Amino acid sequence: MSIQGFDPRTGAATGAPVAETTVAEVDAIAARAAAALGRWARTPAAVRAAALEGIAAAIDAESSELAALADRETALGLPRLTGEIKRTTSQLRLFADVLREGSYLEATLDAADASSVPPRPELRRMLQPIGPVAVFAASNFPFAFSVAGGDTASALAGGSSVVVKAHEAHPQTSRATAAIVARALAAAGAPAGTFDIVYGVAAGAQLVRHPAIKAAGFTGSTHGGRALFDLANARPDPIPFYGELGSVNPVLILPHAADERAKEIARGFAASLTLGAGQFCTNPGLVFAPATLVDELAAAVRQASGGAMLTRRMRDQYLAGTQALAAAAEAVATGAESDAAFGATPHLFRVDLQTFAGDIERFAEECFGPAALVVAYRDPQDAIALLGRLPGSLTASVHAAPADAAEAMQAADVLRGIAGRVVYNAWPTGVAVAWGMQHGGPWPATTNPLHTSVGATAIRRWLVPVTFQDWPDALLPDELKDANPLRIPRRRNGVPGAG
Amino acid sequence: MSIQGFDPRTGAATGAPVAETTVAEVDAIAARAAAALGRWARTPAAVRAAALEGIAAAIDAESSELAALADRETALGLPRLTGEIKRTTSQLRLFADVLREGSYLEATLDAADASSVPPRPELRRMLQPIGPVAVFAASNFPFAFSVAGGDTASALAGGSSVVVKAHEAHPQTSRATAAIVARALAAAGAPAGTFDIVYGVAAGAQLVRHPAIKAAGFTGSTHGGRALFDLANARPDPIPFYGELGSVNPVLILPHAADERAKEIARGFAASLTLGAGQFCTNPGLVFAPATLVDELAAAVRQASGGAMLTRRMRDQYLAGTQALAAAAEAVATGAESDAAFGATPHLFRVDLQTFAGDIERFAEECFGPAALVVAYRDPQDAIALLGRLPGSLTASVHAAPADAAEAMQAADVLRGIAGRVVYNAWPTGVAVAWGMQHGGPWPATTNPLHTSVGATAIRRWLVPVTFQDWPDALLPDELKDANPLRIPRRRNGVPGAG
Repeated sequence: MSIQGFDPRTGAATGAPVAETTVAEVDAIAARAAAALGRWARTPAAVRAAALEGIAAAIDAESSELAALADRETALGLPRLTGEIKRTTSQLRLFADVLREGSYLEATLDAADASSVPPRPELRRMLQPIGPVAVFAASNFPFAFSVAGGDTASALAGGSSVVVKAHEAHPQTSRATAAIVARALAAAGAPAGTFDIVYGVAAGAQLVRHPAIKAAGFTGSTHGGRALFDLANARPDPIPFYGELGSVNPVLILPHAADERAKEIARGFAASLTLGAGQFCTNPGLVFAPATLVDELAAAVRQASGGAMLTRRMRDQYLAGTQALAAAAEAVATGAESDAAFGATPHLFRVDLQTFAGDIERFAEECFGPAALVVAYRDPQDAIALLGRLPGSLTASVHAAPADAAEAMQAADVLRGIAGRVVYNAWPTGVAVAWGMQHGGPWPATTNPLHTSVGATAIRRWLVPVTFQDWPDALLPDELKDANPLRIPRRRNGVPGAG
Repeated sequence: MSIQGFDPRTGAATGAPVAETTVAEVDAIAARAAAALGRWARTPAAVRAAALEGIAAAIDAESSELAALADRETALGLPRLTGEIKRTTSQLRLFADVLREGSYLEATLDAADASSVPPRPELRRMLQPIGPVAVFAASNFPFAFSVAGGDTASALAGGSSVVVKAHEAHPQTSRATAAIVARALAAAGAPAGTFDIVYGVAAGAQLVRHPAIKAAGFTGSTHGGRALFDLANARPDPIPFYGELGSVNPVLILPHAADERAKEIARGFAASLTLGAGQFCTNPGLVFAPATLVDELAAAVRQASGGAMLTRRMRDQYLAGTQALAAAAEAVATGAESDAAFGATPHLFRVDLQTFAGDIERFAEECFGPAALVVAYRDPQDAIALLGRLPGSLTASVHAAPADAAEAMQAADVLRGIAGRVVYNAWPTGVAVAWGMQHGGPWPATTNPLHTSVGATAIRRWLVPVTFQDWPDALLPDELKDANPLRIPRRRNGVPGAG
């Protein structure tokens, strides 16, 4: 069996097929990842940082070739793909910064205290790598959430070895990226087995159940993510599974904002909705708007263009999703069709608030692609009262004018309970790679609301604590030695930054 | 149906039975916990801290009565129980300190940066409560891991409401403690529903599946914990389940230490093994020792006394466990019998290293109570080579003399991969409540190796991140306002402690 890439513009096969990884090969790769762990985990953080920068430089050096290859397999366009490569390498460099800064280790030293109840021995705690990590690449970001994306970068940064399961939608891009990563790691002195890649759904399922694998990251559909999450939890020794699944990303447009900036909001909405043919986890698929704004939103969607979806299957699922919406809600706008083989057309549907409230589960289901449902309200309080009943999302946005401030604050107080990122007067697509980013949220946005898959703290998913009790200083890891030879931020006797 | 406590010394019923909580009652309690969440979550941290201190003071004030009540239901003895109450109230006060210190919020502010790829908006991130938490109390610590124990203290501290499922082994102690907690919270102004308690196995199962419950903590057996973990993951919306399950707590005694301190080590071992009739999650159940030390260990165990186990069922399981060990290994010592109705007798079994290596899964299974298996080795390298194949544990200990330093360091490097706390020249029982404590470990020690159930960072289990993007300062929570009105430690533009 093999994985064949297709050009979404023509529907034709593109590039040579890539063989699916066999059971024996997956076994061998997982065993090598386990064997590499000890050396990679104990490689000084500064050396791991340099290795990440080496990967970034090597990817940047082949940016044009990689973008061209990915464009054939994804039809996302060269400007977007070139930008995504830059984002991917910035992400690798951010984790190099995180490693050098050192607070990700959460190093904590407590002196002994015989007067405590119970008496306190000397305790020195730090975070360390969890073990070999399986990374399930996404289709919609062939670089930033794929082979060398955020999961891989953060897991390698943390000192774990990584086995990527390539996405079927871009096998050649995956293979080319994996070769660059492997070469750069070898050049940086990483042990063989620190990074590898497997191909095929069966290989992925084998990986998440493999005894050598100690955690997994996933970005993709709720259906696929749930299946792998269930496999991870059904193991004799369950492992953490971090899945980023489905998200409807509700948007609340408040009355004064709608009055004052109707055209601007409508244009912004249509642009965000149809960006990349709507293939973003943060796509704004559900809008609560004053009934008076619906025509403006519809007009903007009518002006928008469709595009090629990544795979035939995703396009077919989009068609099914929009047909389900059409059966339940009023179709108020259709954008320009795409002439791509896997083309998707923008759609806007409308439902009134009472109808929506009567079947939230049905109306708030994600329809991946450039389609949205607008829920028309009369009184913003009715809309705000509903927000807390929405399923978990990665983002939630509020559009407000100064006169909407009280309602905006009320809405934020509810939305922070159902979404990981709450946006003000902006659109949710575009996820900055930063210390303060949160890309996560309650189920079904993710399988675990404690974590983020984007930003500096994404590394925390791959780290586990260990405490050394009463060890002689000379036998401790450098991170915990009394003199702090690595000069990392540490908490000492409860005081942060005490060295 | 009702829950009846028994005196482990006599086997007779003690105290009035407590009614099992009905399905309708559990529903109502969970709904009240959900209703209380918003107000408790937004209660200023300083007020929550004072509330925790109020609970601590109220428990301290009734320490004698509580200890007497618990002694009847557990037979753990007044000195131990009085100490455990002090530990429990110290724990509540530690979390008050954690709240006032403020870094648990991980507040992070990033200014906008248009030059980033992708452009970075203004991002402000913090942690917030996950939602109503179910706490499954343990049998073996009727205070410190029960109604007002570490899970409850850390979840309340984090701003979550809590519903405790009482342990069947101490219903009256649970009821009395719950009444104190509820009164103290009400006196501190916490909303009704912030804390409640349910009784019965069915009520517990209902709780972990209840839509209003957003996370659960558990301390108990691998069997019971796994069943609840599976329920939590099988929900339509899976929730984090933090279980602390079984742990064999391996101990490696190195040759020079054995030569120099044979009697001291043997005495320390027997004391740790039989403390509280061996009913500690950190009980040292597996010892790797030079063959020459086995006689000394056996002599110390022969001097040790048994005690009352907490329940008839636990005693029966201990008997079954020791019979299984007797069938597979050589019985080398038996301590003094206990005359308690639920009495357990100390046992030491011995197996050689090759036999152990041939069936690690069987020999390294936890036998809860005062029994241990000593694995006799000739060459410490053979023992060290095996350590990495042991199941996950809460602790692992090394006894070394200065001349054993190289082997101790080698062993630590392996043991940190299988245990959350690595102890040097001490015994693992006794878990200090501190910033630097780690009480966790790989499966089956816990269901999630990223966390601890003891120490300051236990609060992290009940917190989820949220990012506010581009919000006007006046509409932000105080924790994230530019001027830092709460004066908490914050990371700004990547720099920790920048305010």
